[in-house]
Amino acid sequence: MAHPISNGPRADRARRVADVLRQQIHAEAYPDGLPAEHDLAAEFSVSRNTVREALGVLKHEGLIDRGPKVGTHVALRKYSHGLDALLGLKETFKDLGEVRNQVRAAMPVTAPPSVARRLRLEPGERAVFIERLRYLGDLPLSLDLTYLVPDIGTQILEHPLETNDLFALIEQVSGRPLGSASLALEAIPADAHSAATLQVPDGAALLMLERLTCLDDGRPVDLEYIRMRGDRITMRGSLIRADPIRSKP
Amino acid sequence: MAHPISNGPRADRARRVADVLRQQIHAEAYPDGLPAEHDLAAEFSVSRNTVREALGVLKHEGLIDRGPKVGTHVALRKYSHGLDALLGLKETFKDLGEVRNQVRAAMPVTAPPSVARRLRLEPGERAVFIERLRYLGDLPLSLDLTYLVPDIGTQILEHPLETNDLFALIEQVSGRPLGSASLALEAIPADAHSAATLQVPDGAALLMLERLTCLDDGRPVDLEYIRMRGDRITMRGSLIRADPIRSKP
Repeated sequence: MAHPISNGPRADRARRVADVLRQQIHAEAYPDGLPAEHDLAAEFSVSRNTVREALGVLKHEGLIDRGPKVGTHVALRKYSHGLDALLGLKETFKDLGEVRNQVRAAMPVTAPPSVARRLRLEPGERAVFIERLRYLGDLPLSLDLTYLVPDIGTQILEHPLETNDLFALIEQVSGRPLGSASLALEAIPADAHSAATLQVPDGAALLMLERLTCLDDGRPVDLEYIRMRGDRITMRGSLIRADPIRSKP
Repeated sequence: MAHPISNGPRADRARRVADVLRQQIHAEAYPDGLPAEHDLAAEFSVSRNTVREALGVLKHEGLIDRGPKVGTHVALRKYSHGLDALLGLKETFKDLGEVRNQVRAAMPVTAPPSVARRLRLEPGERAVFIERLRYLGDLPLSLDLTYLVPDIGTQILEHPLETNDLFALIEQVSGRPLGSASLALEAIPADAHSAATLQVPDGAALLMLERLTCLDDGRPVDLEYIRMRGDRITMRGSLIRADPIRSKP
């Protein structure tokens, strides 16, 4: 009986090993470094060359470092951001370290027409634009572009944006809890300028999140375009099976 | 009063334009091609050079094509895959075209130990491994690596895998509905071999989904590692604000 990873071209076998190892690394299974190549080869029933190719895939992703003397260890811890709950970064990572924001812009603006429509503003009505580069520790996590409705946004401009989540500030100044958000999540290559800002290589894979957040009364108040470093953030959540009959148009 | 996109370096302004245009394109606002540069410049109150730089960002992502005679048009339609419901690709895209699967592997295997643990298999117990390259129309959408529990997987191997979603087959052979799934979503660069398989450039941004799916009785039956082409799939869903008090550990 064949082992999965002993079948087909070596690159296919290496991918299968890399995919399992990637999740093991995220689960912090190797705090003291990855097992030696021959141990991994035994665990996956593949050759050491296949293990080397799998580790090369993960190194290319920036997940591990390898050296002839020091072995293989995790290069950069990856953090989990929730797909189940609507939480800001500071709330999410409060036990992991300080989130601080470099505020690149914070000002009233005339929103582009399609932004105005999504925030239910009158044509030409002003919004508030905030752009932040968000750090956890010494490294950027994400670059966030935010359009806020004017009544809430104008008040938020009077608060310190370097250390607060916008979600918390929106609830504070509006006096209402947030309700829900609709989101679109993509993988895009970093353009040269975004790459330099986020301190990643040109073309690096980014998680791009567009999120429209509403208060509990259903009013949209916050439209964000968030570029997350692919090597630092994993989005996690759960899904429920819908009845395929009901989901028909 | 400043317009957001007339402030700061041109690359920042171009990013702001690109982010709004990207979502407009996804919303099919431009079926007959994008407006001319001078119209976009007026809409966003930026220079034509800034518009050109924004369009360059979207071209680099593979989203648009540009030509001196033909103008700017959408290069590749991007499809929405649900983050709210647990649906297979064929169910999801049933109104958009035929999903067909090139089956690259389908066989009993000895699962790697960490895969066995997640599927609650005894050490050394066999699983079923299936690898499929999934197409919508003429282009690959995703490369899916799947480990199934043996009782269900062995029966599934007797069904045509080229035209069916695994979710539908799991429900058919087990006689139970699926319940829920936990998922982890990342952006990763395509390694050379995966890139060639998915027909994207080396290093292209992929959406990497790891998904553990359970039957309605909570038993995990299906562990998948899915590479989606970043230029073809957007994941969409909604979130509810959790009470920050309750979410404390």
